[in-house]
Amino acid sequence: MIRIFITGGTFDKTYDEIRGQLTFGDTHLPEMLRLGRSRADVAIRTLMMIDSLEMTGADREAIVRNCQQCDERCIVITHGTDTMVETAAALARGVAGKTIVLTGAMIPYAFGSSDGLFNLGSALSLVQVLKPGVYIAMNGRHFEWDKVRKNRETGVFEAVI
Amino acid sequence: MIRIFITGGTFDKTYDEIRGQLTFGDTHLPEMLRLGRSRADVAIRTLMMIDSLEMTGADREAIVRNCQQCDERCIVITHGTDTMVETAAALARGVAGKTIVLTGAMIPYAFGSSDGLFNLGSALSLVQVLKPGVYIAMNGRHFEWDKVRKNRETGVFEAVI
Amino acid sequence: MIRIFITGGTFDKTYDEIRGQLTFGDTHLPEMLRLGRSRADVAIRTLMMIDSLEMTGADREAIVRNCQQCDERCIVITHGTDTMVETAAALARGVAGKTIVLTGAMIPYAFGSSDGLFNLGSALSLVQVLKPGVYIAMNGRHFEWDKVRKNRETGVFEAVI
Amino acid sequence: MIRIFITGGTFDKTYDEIRGQLTFGDTHLPEMLRLGRSRADVAIRTLMMIDSLEMTGADREAIVRNCQQCDERCIVITHGTDTMVETAAALARGVAGKTIVLTGAMIPYAFGSSDGLFNLGSALSLVQVLKPGVYIAMNGRHFEWDKVRKNRETGVFEAVI
Repeated sequence: MIRIFITGGTFDKTYDEIRGQLTFGDTHLPEMLRLGRSRADVAIRTLMMIDSLEMTGADREAIVRNCQQCDERCIVITHGTDTMVETAAALARGVAGKTIVLTGAMIPYAFGSSDGLFNLGSALSLVQVLKPGVYIAMNGRHFEWDKVRKNRETGVFEAVI
Repeated sequence: MIRIFITGGTFDKTYDEIRGQLTFGDTHLPEMLRLGRSRADVAIRTLMMIDSLEMTGADREAIVRNCQQCDERCIVITHGTDTMVETAAALARGVAGKTIVLTGAMIPYAFGSSDGLFNLGSALSLVQVLKPGVYIAMNGRHFEWDKVRKNRETGVFEAVI
Repeated sequence: MIRIFITGGTFDKTYDEIRGQLTFGDTHLPEMLRLGRSRADVAIRTLMMIDSLEMTGADREAIVRNCQQCDERCIVITHGTDTMVETAAALARGVAGKTIVLTGAMIPYAFGSSDGLFNLGSALSLVQVLKPGVYIAMNGRHFEWDKVRKNRETGVFEAVI
Repeated sequence: MIRIFITGGTFDKTYDEIRGQLTFGDTHLPEMLRLGRSRADVAIRTLMMIDSLEMTGADREAIVRNCQQCDERCIVITHGTDTMVETAAALARGVAGKTIVLTGAMIPYAFGSSDGLFNLGSALSLVQVLKPGVYIAMNGRHFEWDKVRKNRETGVFEAVI
């Protein structure tokens, strides 16, 4: 059984027709798993639905606590890309003996042109095979939590040497 | 560097507007990698573009030979689902010391509702972490080549015990 | 109130995952109207769900009879493109005093790249403004029933002089 | 020949991956016409690329002037929905003897779930058949410029009696 925690991020942004702006509604994860015809055994829980730039220390503690306390040893977390590395670091400090893969998207899933489904496929597969630790999986690559940073100018996750 | 070999299958079926039927054109792989904003280092080569029910022994030999002779040790093969297991067996007999992941789709990528991007994300990630061997990655799960079969009635890849 | 009659055609073809071929299921019309956020007042009825190459004289009679007998004076018919002109001629002979617009698609709606939604927008608008008669609306143009033919080689509906 | 003037609006909003917000890039009109396999004879010109809430009196004068001066007598204008009615009124005052249809979208075209293609099909068809005047075509209905308003709470264009 794989645990999926939803925290929001670009992944789950949607378009508010009335106000003409991006917003958060329900998570698209179940729809994405259906599209991927996923046969992986998963349990989904939405912890929060926020832009990762607005994520507070208390939010991160809640994520860490949920990862500590859940029964599953394989955990995928969907997360905004801007502070994904910070949350990964908090998880590395606070959770032991579990494989945790954070993933997200550069383009909202609700947009036809999203990378979300590709990244979700990666994350769900990696969490089944990587040894315990905290990882970030984005755009066909994955990194250990302390060997990656997001390049704010290009939007790309890069290896830190 | 990851080698991607294209062989056709549902993955790459497209719709012929004039004749009103499914057909094969160019592979959608480059477009899919662009959609996934893939940063994985890949080299793509189309070996054939056929329905896997029409794949002959000579076709399978060509696939095996290409996997033997290419420089890369990580290989993803897109393949029709109907005979994916047979090709996996041929590869297991003929190729040593490489990690080979076969993947495909239940629905053509050109259809909006395809599982192809999800499966491609899985395959590209798994090929980077699995130890040498031949695997099938479909719909959130992966199997060693001799521990899987396709259930023709449900369309689902299942573990063989 | 606009009456919409469904007869099948490329419009409504879908992909059978198990058998790997095109087939017909339920019509996509309600989903398309939802996507178009259509506020037009419509009543939908599926008369048949077939490839128009397989449409018989009896099928055409059924379509004509339904157009005669329904209360609405504005009728949109979704139809395969191959024999759309023949059905239009049958309607012109059999139905008087109503505006009937036939439309279809070159690519199934279930494919992401379909022209179906564009054509449906055209047909639903034209039926509200054209004077009684039988018309074909495809790909940004419309024709009276006896001034059009489908060019089988290019797939394009052309004016007949 | 139909003239299409682009002014921006939700229709053409796109997602800025780096900054994580909605923005304007190039118009999607040519891509939409390609998707609709449109055979209508059109000439496209981008006048501006803005949110219609930010449209000034000078912007509206530019739109009116372009409609007066172009050779075509059939004009489609893509426009944000929030002030579409105001621009329609300016056109009615300033342009005579031409058929002008304004259209837009509730959801950006770049989102998979957009009504844009449906509305574009409507507008392109209506402009070919309506008598000279200024009209708004949205979501399966169309209105004369002085008989419509946008309900800001529901997002729906409604008839004004």
